[in-house]
Amino acid sequence: MNRKPTLAVVGATGAVGEVLLQMLSQHADVWGEIRLIASPRTAGHKLSVRGEDVEVLPLSEEALEGAQVALFAVPDAVAAQWAPIAAAKGVVVVDSSGVFRMDADVPLVVPEVNPHAVRLRPRGIVASPQCTTLAMIVAVGALHAEFGLRELVVSTYQAASGEGRAGVETLRRQTELVAGTKLGTNPGDVRRAVGDDTGPFPGPVVLNVVPWAGEAGDDGWSSDELRLRGEARKILDLPDVRVSATCVRVPVVTGHSLSVHAAFENEVTVARAHEILATAPGVVLFDNPAAGDFPTPADVVGTDPAWVGRVRRSLDDPCALDLFLCADNLRKGAALNAAQIAEAVAAELTAP
Amino acid sequence: MNRKPTLAVVGATGAVGEVLLQMLSQHADVWGEIRLIASPRTAGHKLSVRGEDVEVLPLSEEALEGAQVALFAVPDAVAAQWAPIAAAKGVVVVDSSGVFRMDADVPLVVPEVNPHAVRLRPRGIVASPQCTTLAMIVAVGALHAEFGLRELVVSTYQAASGEGRAGVETLRRQTELVAGTKLGTNPGDVRRAVGDDTGPFPGPVVLNVVPWAGEAGDDGWSSDELRLRGEARKILDLPDVRVSATCVRVPVVTGHSLSVHAAFENEVTVARAHEILATAPGVVLFDNPAAGDFPTPADVVGTDPAWVGRVRRSLDDPCALDLFLCADNLRKGAALNAAQIAEAVAAELTAP
Ligand SMILES: NC(=O)c1ccc[n+]([C@@H]2O[C@H](COP(=O)([O-])OP(=O)(O)OC[C@H]3O[C@@H](n4cnc5c(N)ncnc54)[C@H](OP(=O)(O)O)[C@@H]3O)[C@@H](O)[C@H]2O)c1
Ligand SMILES: NC(=O)c1ccc[n+]([C@@H]2O[C@H](COP(=O)([O-])OP(=O)(O)OC[C@H]3O[C@@H](n4cnc5c(N)ncnc54)[C@H](OP(=O)(O)O)[C@@H]3O)[C@@H](O)[C@H]2O)c1
Repeated sequence: MNRKPTLAVVGATGAVGEVLLQMLSQHADVWGEIRLIASPRTAGHKLSVRGEDVEVLPLSEEALEGAQVALFAVPDAVAAQWAPIAAAKGVVVVDSSGVFRMDADVPLVVPEVNPHAVRLRPRGIVASPQCTTLAMIVAVGALHAEFGLRELVVSTYQAASGEGRAGVETLRRQTELVAGTKLGTNPGDVRRAVGDDTGPFPGPVVLNVVPWAGEAGDDGWSSDELRLRGEARKILDLPDVRVSATCVRVPVVTGHSLSVHAAFENEVTVARAHEILATAPGVVLFDNPAAGDFPTPADVVGTDPAWVGRVRRSLDDPCALDLFLCADNLRKGAALNAAQIAEAVAAELTAP
Repeated sequence: MNRKPTLAVVGATGAVGEVLLQMLSQHADVWGEIRLIASPRTAGHKLSVRGEDVEVLPLSEEALEGAQVALFAVPDAVAAQWAPIAAAKGVVVVDSSGVFRMDADVPLVVPEVNPHAVRLRPRGIVASPQCTTLAMIVAVGALHAEFGLRELVVSTYQAASGEGRAGVETLRRQTELVAGTKLGTNPGDVRRAVGDDTGPFPGPVVLNVVPWAGEAGDDGWSSDELRLRGEARKILDLPDVRVSATCVRVPVVTGHSLSVHAAFENEVTVARAHEILATAPGVVLFDNPAAGDFPTPADVVGTDPAWVGRVRRSLDDPCALDLFLCADNLRKGAALNAAQIAEAVAAELTAP
């Protein structure tokens, strides 16, 4: 094939979908037709992509017909049902949901770390990792290549938009309810002010942090915590590396942050870690606390790379580093990584 | 001495001072006279303690004269100057600042963990730990007693009131500025909205997290991070235990949270950890995620104990636990611990 491939964007109206359409408008134009697909609820709406208004189609077999690549950014249940249908039609599916990531027959791809993996896709599906994994994995992968990763201990500071549009609306509504009040010093006063409707979160997310993200897994772990472990092991091809994660929601609109303690096989130095991170593609080193330089979500939101700062060598272990990372969960954490994968597939499909 | 001792509260008008006055009104009445002291700025103000209005005195040698115990809750520089002056007058100083905690001649006391330490105080000063240390140390100490602590990796979620009244005012002002807006999705839009006045924080604290607390220490560490390490080692009397901390400010009014990864000498089980935490004095176990039971700062603010939940055994290390803890940084994190120490001193002074 030498024509530009047809792309279907499934979930075009969502939080990730919105950023995907921006990326498709800004990136090098590798696509022929671009079809926008969502649920029957929003079918008929018009969205702008590459400067044109395009009508949203309801998800159906016909809507997928003739596409070569489909970017899926829909809830797990929708991806579980429809990705195999699309793949059966010969469409290469690049899926951002949690359904296929740990499937042995589905590659889990971060182009800066394991670009080769995209080509072997027996099910016709390529998975993109969850946003917390993506915020750290490029930087951690670069350090691993030099020092040999042994263990990760991760605590997250996850933004509301990790739960899509509903998450953002919930945080904004709750922020209005507490602004101008003296709430936050008596037990339960924030909970009473925001009421029972905590949206997609299991507790108030304004003036609060909620140590839970995802569904309940075994032994007290949340699905986001288990996924971070499983995905990091799979992407780095380190099936036995130790990973412990605690996933926490914070009152930030967009931009996930992670505190990472990484222990390596070999001795580390901050100077060498800085060199590696400063030159790793897709990573920005921003680390001079004396000048106020460390990444925060409010500063990195809307940007493509993963930002890393607060690089310190453990005072008790010459082989361990502590880092703080921020990335836009809708960009590198979702849409950008998926778009990068889709572009790699397009290049492969159109190669002579 | 058999009369009830005279107590001076130095810093009575501050964030910690306000809670101290509540505690002095509610706790068993061990004090004779209670003197309230602050800066010349607020001298002459009247504050209520034990149901009576008491006039605030300006800090001076005269104001301290004749007191047996003084609770200091003032900035570091004021404590550094005045605690030795008070001690020289024979006043036992219980200090909440960061100045004396690592002094080998000053005991650092958490009554649930090392109550005996209070009696040996060659300088006449007893120090109370920082709020982040206090939020975890009772629970960690109880687990250490059973399993033998080897390593702590800690990430904090610190509330605005950790920076006193100025911190709370900053968060409240910034919350009003972003309420009702669509801010939080473009780089720097939160920073522009809140302006240059970020109060005691090195960046906007609303709709953001800021990976910095305290002053700059060596090798990229912040003073809160170094203090957490030094204080935990001193209180637990484990001078070589490994501790790595990353301290982060979050948009919460009051209530510090900590994600703690704790590795032990011996194998752990969640069941045994639950038993220990459920019976440890000053700790509340709140750990049933399926029922939505995990501590959050909005729920535990205003309460005395440290709350612990999300207890998980590492999937890769049978000797490691991951926990999430919350405590009111003005109560157990400051005023309550200091009041407990002062009451132990009072009991000693009045013992027949
Ligand atoms: N948000 C993040 O940070 C992030 C990061 C990485 C991965 N992801 C994953 O990306 C996916 C999308 O997340 P999001 O945050 O964009 O969610 P979202 O804002 O809730 O958007 C969901 C999208 O799916 C569509 N959809 C829902 N039900 C559908 C159905 N039955 N048929 C067809 N389309 C349907 C919605 O269309 P309507 O508008 O018509 O309802 C909308 O376009 C999820 O799997 C999520 O786990 C999200
Ligand atoms: N906030 C926490 O979570 C926390 C936890 C543990 C320990 N601590 C420590 O406790 C201490 C007090 O903290 P805070 O949060 O209560 O601070 P804050 O709200 O800023 O209060 C400071 C107090 O110190 C007084 N003060 C300031 N300068 C003074 C001077 N020159 N002479 C006499 N008094 C003076 C103030 O009196 P005016 O009102 O007259 O200015 C006020 O009463 C600090 O050392 C802090 O590190 C705080």
